[in-house]
Amino acid sequence: MTTPIIEADIAGARALIDPVFLDSPLVQQETIDEQLGCKVALKVETLNPIRSFKGRGTEALMASLHSKPAHVVTTSSGNFGQGVARAATRRGIRSTIFSADDINPGKLAAMQRLGAEVRLVPVGEDFKAAARQAAVAMGAFYIEDGDHPEIAAGAGTIGMEIIRQAGVLDAVLVQIGDGALITGIGSWIKATSPGTRVIGVTAKSAPAMRKSLAQRKPVSATPRTIADGMAIDTPIASSINAVAAVIDDIIEVEEDALVDAMALLLREASLVAEPSGAAGVAAILRNGEMFRTLKVATIITGGNTRPELLAEAAARAKKRVHGDKPEIVA
Amino acid sequence: MTTPIIEADIAGARALIDPVFLDSPLVQQETIDEQLGCKVALKVETLNPIRSFKGRGTEALMASLHSKPAHVVTTSSGNFGQGVARAATRRGIRSTIFSADDINPGKLAAMQRLGAEVRLVPVGEDFKAAARQAAVAMGAFYIEDGDHPEIAAGAGTIGMEIIRQAGVLDAVLVQIGDGALITGIGSWIKATSPGTRVIGVTAKSAPAMRKSLAQRKPVSATPRTIADGMAIDTPIASSINAVAAVIDDIIEVEEDALVDAMALLLREASLVAEPSGAAGVAAILRNGEMFRTLKVATIITGGNTRPELLAEAAARAKKRVHGDKPEIVA
Repeated sequence: MTTPIIEADIAGARALIDPVFLDSPLVQQETIDEQLGCKVALKVETLNPIRSFKGRGTEALMASLHSKPAHVVTTSSGNFGQGVARAATRRGIRSTIFSADDINPGKLAAMQRLGAEVRLVPVGEDFKAAARQAAVAMGAFYIEDGDHPEIAAGAGTIGMEIIRQAGVLDAVLVQIGDGALITGIGSWIKATSPGTRVIGVTAKSAPAMRKSLAQRKPVSATPRTIADGMAIDTPIASSINAVAAVIDDIIEVEEDALVDAMALLLREASLVAEPSGAAGVAAILRNGEMFRTLKVATIITGGNTRPELLAEAAARAKKRVHGDKPEIVA
Repeated sequence: MTTPIIEADIAGARALIDPVFLDSPLVQQETIDEQLGCKVALKVETLNPIRSFKGRGTEALMASLHSKPAHVVTTSSGNFGQGVARAATRRGIRSTIFSADDINPGKLAAMQRLGAEVRLVPVGEDFKAAARQAAVAMGAFYIEDGDHPEIAAGAGTIGMEIIRQAGVLDAVLVQIGDGALITGIGSWIKATSPGTRVIGVTAKSAPAMRKSLAQRKPVSATPRTIADGMAIDTPIASSINAVAAVIDDIIEVEEDALVDAMALLLREASLVAEPSGAAGVAAILRNGEMFRTLKVATIITGGNTRPELLAEAAARAKKRVHGDKPEIVA
């Protein structure tokens, strides 16, 4: 099949990315497999300097710009902004990030530490429009996550690594936010391992992308999820088509499942995941029968967790979390 | 200097170890550096199948035995036992582990899952003596952690990797339990990077090794620490000499500092460390002036945390933890 991103562009992106983001660990734990009822490989993207996968795409994009801009502007719930800020600052480029004012304070501080100016827009207002206007007014290069193929190509390097590290897989579960991650990974998987199913994961409380995929056009819906990395208001049209081209199925996860998955990862894998980062695990946890005996991989996309959610997940980790089958709680 | 373990034996051990334990990530986070006041590289040994560094030594030992035993016996608070159980089971060797009955239940379950028979001895009784007697009675090969140079050589591969990944360091902080870890890492460091200080870290509530090092002979002291990986009752004489040969200094950490360090790692590095695993970070956290502006490394030795301690650390992570200087708590 023709994939939205071609293999050569993903391989090319790899050469452009700061190696600090590459070759992240693939973690397998028997206790996780037992509790999820299938063999699960976790691609851990939480240990790099920005503690999320976003650095791959932002590096690939910034390194591929033909003329270096003096100033870039973008919008972010925090992780993409960290990637942009880091990639810009190390190249001597000014960065301005627009975020909603209910942002995770840790992500806000991290973007600022990496050199970005962050402008907070009241939640509910259109911060993308504000960012676009500001970019025009300031003569800055406007970056929209999900709208640059270089970003998806950068994210696609995760797919390359998963196949190399894990071998043949029955399925890969990939979180859908703006769509760049699953477009990149899905393109690599479909091109190189066509028997592997690509399953998108969305938050039930952020239904815009799922609805948009169903209707094949942008549908807006206000997200109300703790998974800020998947909290899309209105998907980009080009992104909807690209995602549709690579996914075989889609699973929606509820908020409670996200926290249970965070607890499972804390307890059985020694990993802190933010809610979006735990979404693939949450999808398996609540749909055990669908994956029984299969070999799958999913991505722990980020670890920038609000402290109060971390505490909640750790409190839950005192009990065994359970999936779709009744189990005896130890 | 002549080191207790020679470089060639550490390099040789590397070839014997299941690669799943090798080349663990070295993590650096600016927020950790800011909060600790120095540049800190974290060698993360929590992501392998037994979630601790012990697999390196147990693999090196089991792979180097000239005649394969039918049955091995050892003692463990849980992590070494997991390493022995895994290395034995995959070689078709029976394993019996003696542990105190106040063992972390997660570690008990993990040893059993890996194929070990675990015998629990009432806390306070001499479970080493019980294990030795049982080994004789059963005709089994008795393994004592800290007493086989192959185990220290296996642990020394961590030192090789740290120097390769981190470059020149002012100091490496290494937890002292039975002594094999610091003997192995310290040997590599002293041989290859003599300007790097090797600093041992012990738990104040487990003073046997510190007292033994001071007197250069085994001194017993009942450990009362949450850091079960450092809870030694009576060190082995040979181990005391080996540790003394490689350390430049020793830092004792209090229980409260261990939990603060666990909280810092959860919050700023997305890592779950067990108390022993966080001990090097705890030592820096409470002795900031000693390390100010230096470049150091320490090992996150394990992530098999009791769920109640994980919850306590996560609750603390809601506040910023602080070191030896008064800071404004956010």
